[in-house]
Amino acid sequence: MAEQTPEISFLPVPPRDELPEGVGRLWDKSQEAFGFIPNVFQAQAVNGDQFLAWWNYFNLLVNKEGYLTNAERELVAVVVSGLNRCTYCTISHGAALRQYSGDPVTADLVAVNWRQADLSRRERAMAEYAELLTRAPDEVGREDLEPLREVGLGDHEIMELVQVIGMFNMTNRVATALGFVPNEEYHSHARS
Amino acid sequence: MAEQTPEISFLPVPPRDELPEGVGRLWDKSQEAFGFIPNVFQAQAVNGDQFLAWWNYFNLLVNKEGYLTNAERELVAVVVSGLNRCTYCTISHGAALRQYSGDPVTADLVAVNWRQADLSRRERAMAEYAELLTRAPDEVGREDLEPLREVGLGDHEIMELVQVIGMFNMTNRVATALGFVPNEEYHSHARS
Amino acid sequence: MAEQTPEISFLPVPPRDELPEGVGRLWDKSQEAFGFIPNVFQAQAVNGDQFLAWWNYFNLLVNKEGYLTNAERELVAVVVSGLNRCTYCTISHGAALRQYSGDPVTADLVAVNWRQADLSRRERAMAEYAELLTRAPDEVGREDLEPLREVGLGDHEIMELVQVIGMFNMTNRVATALGFVPNEEYHSHARS
Amino acid sequence: MAEQTPEISFLPVPPRDELPEGVGRLWDKSQEAFGFIPNVFQAQAVNGDQFLAWWNYFNLLVNKEGYLTNAERELVAVVVSGLNRCTYCTISHGAALRQYSGDPVTADLVAVNWRQADLSRRERAMAEYAELLTRAPDEVGREDLEPLREVGLGDHEIMELVQVIGMFNMTNRVATALGFVPNEEYHSHARS
Amino acid sequence: MAEQTPEISFLPVPPRDELPEGVGRLWDKSQEAFGFIPNVFQAQAVNGDQFLAWWNYFNLLVNKEGYLTNAERELVAVVVSGLNRCTYCTISHGAALRQYSGDPVTADLVAVNWRQADLSRRERAMAEYAELLTRAPDEVGREDLEPLREVGLGDHEIMELVQVIGMFNMTNRVATALGFVPNEEYHSHARS
Amino acid sequence: MAEQTPEISFLPVPPRDELPEGVGRLWDKSQEAFGFIPNVFQAQAVNGDQFLAWWNYFNLLVNKEGYLTNAERELVAVVVSGLNRCTYCTISHGAALRQYSGDPVTADLVAVNWRQADLSRRERAMAEYAELLTRAPDEVGREDLEPLREVGLGDHEIMELVQVIGMFNMTNRVATALGFVPNEEYHSHARS
Repeated sequence: MAEQTPEISFLPVPPRDELPEGVGRLWDKSQEAFGFIPNVFQAQAVNGDQFLAWWNYFNLLVNKEGYLTNAERELVAVVVSGLNRCTYCTISHGAALRQYSGDPVTADLVAVNWRQADLSRRERAMAEYAELLTRAPDEVGREDLEPLREVGLGDHEIMELVQVIGMFNMTNRVATALGFVPNEEYHSHARS
Repeated sequence: MAEQTPEISFLPVPPRDELPEGVGRLWDKSQEAFGFIPNVFQAQAVNGDQFLAWWNYFNLLVNKEGYLTNAERELVAVVVSGLNRCTYCTISHGAALRQYSGDPVTADLVAVNWRQADLSRRERAMAEYAELLTRAPDEVGREDLEPLREVGLGDHEIMELVQVIGMFNMTNRVATALGFVPNEEYHSHARS
Repeated sequence: MAEQTPEISFLPVPPRDELPEGVGRLWDKSQEAFGFIPNVFQAQAVNGDQFLAWWNYFNLLVNKEGYLTNAERELVAVVVSGLNRCTYCTISHGAALRQYSGDPVTADLVAVNWRQADLSRRERAMAEYAELLTRAPDEVGREDLEPLREVGLGDHEIMELVQVIGMFNMTNRVATALGFVPNEEYHSHARS
Repeated sequence: MAEQTPEISFLPVPPRDELPEGVGRLWDKSQEAFGFIPNVFQAQAVNGDQFLAWWNYFNLLVNKEGYLTNAERELVAVVVSGLNRCTYCTISHGAALRQYSGDPVTADLVAVNWRQADLSRRERAMAEYAELLTRAPDEVGREDLEPLREVGLGDHEIMELVQVIGMFNMTNRVATALGFVPNEEYHSHARS
Repeated sequence: MAEQTPEISFLPVPPRDELPEGVGRLWDKSQEAFGFIPNVFQAQAVNGDQFLAWWNYFNLLVNKEGYLTNAERELVAVVVSGLNRCTYCTISHGAALRQYSGDPVTADLVAVNWRQADLSRRERAMAEYAELLTRAPDEVGREDLEPLREVGLGDHEIMELVQVIGMFNMTNRVATALGFVPNEEYHSHARS
Repeated sequence: MAEQTPEISFLPVPPRDELPEGVGRLWDKSQEAFGFIPNVFQAQAVNGDQFLAWWNYFNLLVNKEGYLTNAERELVAVVVSGLNRCTYCTISHGAALRQYSGDPVTADLVAVNWRQADLSRRERAMAEYAELLTRAPDEVGREDLEPLREVGLGDHEIMELVQVIGMFNMTNRVATALGFVPNEEYHSHARS
């Protein structure tokens, strides 16, 4: 299958029989669960073991039960990815945000500019911090955590939030550097 | 111990007996190996399981045998961390670069501006790409991989390189956001 | 009607009977044609005569038959509006681009980053110039017109192109400054 | 005449007999009124109908009686054009500002940096907002209108102000993209 | 006299009898030569000895016979000062450029954007380098000296050029930080 | 000697017998005092008289007894030079800061990001102002001097501070433009 979709990355997708076992299992599982294999699973398989180690971390931090809700983490993902203009992450996590929030209008607005979206005070505080830490990581300080405290974030939530912001600053760069193309399914997912 | 070093992070370090077992083992192991516990191990323990998942990925990507040499990966770490003005990562990976390269003068120069350091053509190509992908992730394209190909990087090396650049764009944000203080040992390590 | 939708702008929408006649006619015409009144028609009615003069120019430049196709002008509109992070223009002209191009996947990608979208050489040249002129108007010169000439643009097309780029640099600022909210209809328009 | 001044634009000025009638009349009128034809009238005549539609809007918004004084609108024109480093607009509207304000010293300072010019509180508020909306259109919000309210601007004035700021962000890009050269008369106009 | 013009700087001008002798002599000499005392001579007199040491260097580098012509050095002064939006230096060295070049039109254009001014190849190369070194001092390298070599600059000219660029990056910051107001005489000097 | 160290600058170091007498004396004096000739003394000797005039000013402003302590002036030097990513000045003044402050850990941190260093309130105010004036010289105003007043700086200290900030914005550009290489001695100086 990979051979037939060479245009999902600037690097060729490795043939399935050269992959570590865990990667193949993940491909199968996602094919079953979503009806398609996310292109990032194929594109990052170039270095299979590094991919699995990344996925274990990403999956725990972004997808599993955490201190912030899934919708909150996807909101941050879309804010950061939109700022970094990463097509793969903005489109795919836009789909996830629509699904978790059930609000496709707000999800579209957040992808362009969270300031003009109808967000709660807590969401705005997280979005504003995500923009600051993405744009000017050298200018943040202790005082910038105050607005997060004021909307109810404790130590665990703050630690998770900064990691999620950091994570998308990582994946945005990997995906854009290598030209990952989002699966078409993401564009229409959870729109109605 | 944690209670005695509250100033290594804006968030309090959790007491040892509240940590997941893996974190405590890591503290012990590093105490033995280096004579101190890297402050990032203590500071990120706030969310212990997320820390371990991150560490497994980081350790594989940056420290273990990979496609690039350790000195090359540390060079990229210092370039990115210097650009993002992250004190923790610039100081601690500056120490690692001195150790792996055996060249403290060049390591110091790279932390300020790789353009003015005496680097090989291969190192310059990686440093230049790291600066571009850190500063303007939205402007990179397929053509920017060409100079990397020309100095001998293949698919595996390129995939590793973009992940290392991405990783430090992540950790720089986490460390600066939370005010991680580098252990004093790093400042003088491998200077002579 | 206007009184019932106060949230479409930071400034109140004037009551219909205080409007210049031309504005009311435009409201009726668009209600008939689209089934709704674009919020910009309501929000800009604060200064009715200025609005009509703007609309006459905008409508001629962007919507009527010109030197570039409608899809090309909407492509430029989306590139510029995405760069300026204007929610109103990115969402509403995203809808227009989907309609004229019949390609919702590419339209979504262009809104985030045209570099990662599957564009023709001619479209890329226009998108690249639109980004340059939007981001660094003080750095353009005669030589930057060459790539446009090479993909077939003559004097008339270039004159139209720079005006379209300029126009959205204008409307993006007006819409964002005053918090114009895109009509919900735009989000789903021409998606399937 | 146009043929004798080819250097006023990167695009050739069309011969007079190929122009829409309205453009020729405008050339004559300005020749009579000012003793010269503003180069923008000649340079934009490439697409005559678009030029006239733009001029109708521009003339109403910037030159005719409005909600702000002419001097205030020219102040904003010079602030925006100076920031975008547009020679045509900075020089020609610098002349207009000198004329309307009768204060050539302040006009010169505003072209470089309004912060260092001796402006009224109302002028400073408009200049500061013009700089913000020009430089960072994606970061403005409802709260940025407050300082304008405080110096007495109502809905009509604010709507006019944001359009004037938008307009010069448009014309600056058109004039610089196409290399419009300001008529020499502007340099010395209203200096004594 | 100083006491009567407190508005030339954010810091008070010291009374003449508290000045080092050299400063008073300079005031007298300039009063005689120009008919006025440049405000920078008064404003910087706060620390008289530092002022004299600066002036000795500035005067030698910028005003005395050097390797570049006076007009060339003033061109660079205006380019740098315009970029840094320093009112004092842009206005006062704009006057000097008009005087040395005898071309007030070009001098005005250079203050806004040298790209749109009618400069020689040699002047453009110096202006372009001045913009690069002012805007992105961390990105220049050996290769950026090549265009200067190509238009005839040798080692002495290059050494002088980079010092002049550096000097105005210094004085622009001093003058703007302290709000130095250019003498009114500069605005009209050498205009006809 | 100069001929044997051609790699300290992009321009050749002039032979000693072609230097003005004052330059040779300075070379001898520094060889005696420090055991080496700072490379800037050799590299700037290309234009000997300009070098001496600069040195007289620099030496008075930065090294001699002034209004700020030497450690304070070196702190500002390192903050500015780090921001401009000047290797020569960051390394050499990092050494001076270590010597005057006796605190190598803080000196290293300041070179990367003063926000994350353990500074006094007075030092932070100066460092913050130095960053502002270096990064955005066009945006400073009278109000930005207030925090300096609050930590005890009077007119003389402020005048000295802005000159020191200006000076390193000058020398950073000269040193980077010409590729000055810091003497190796600076890297290890005052580290223990």
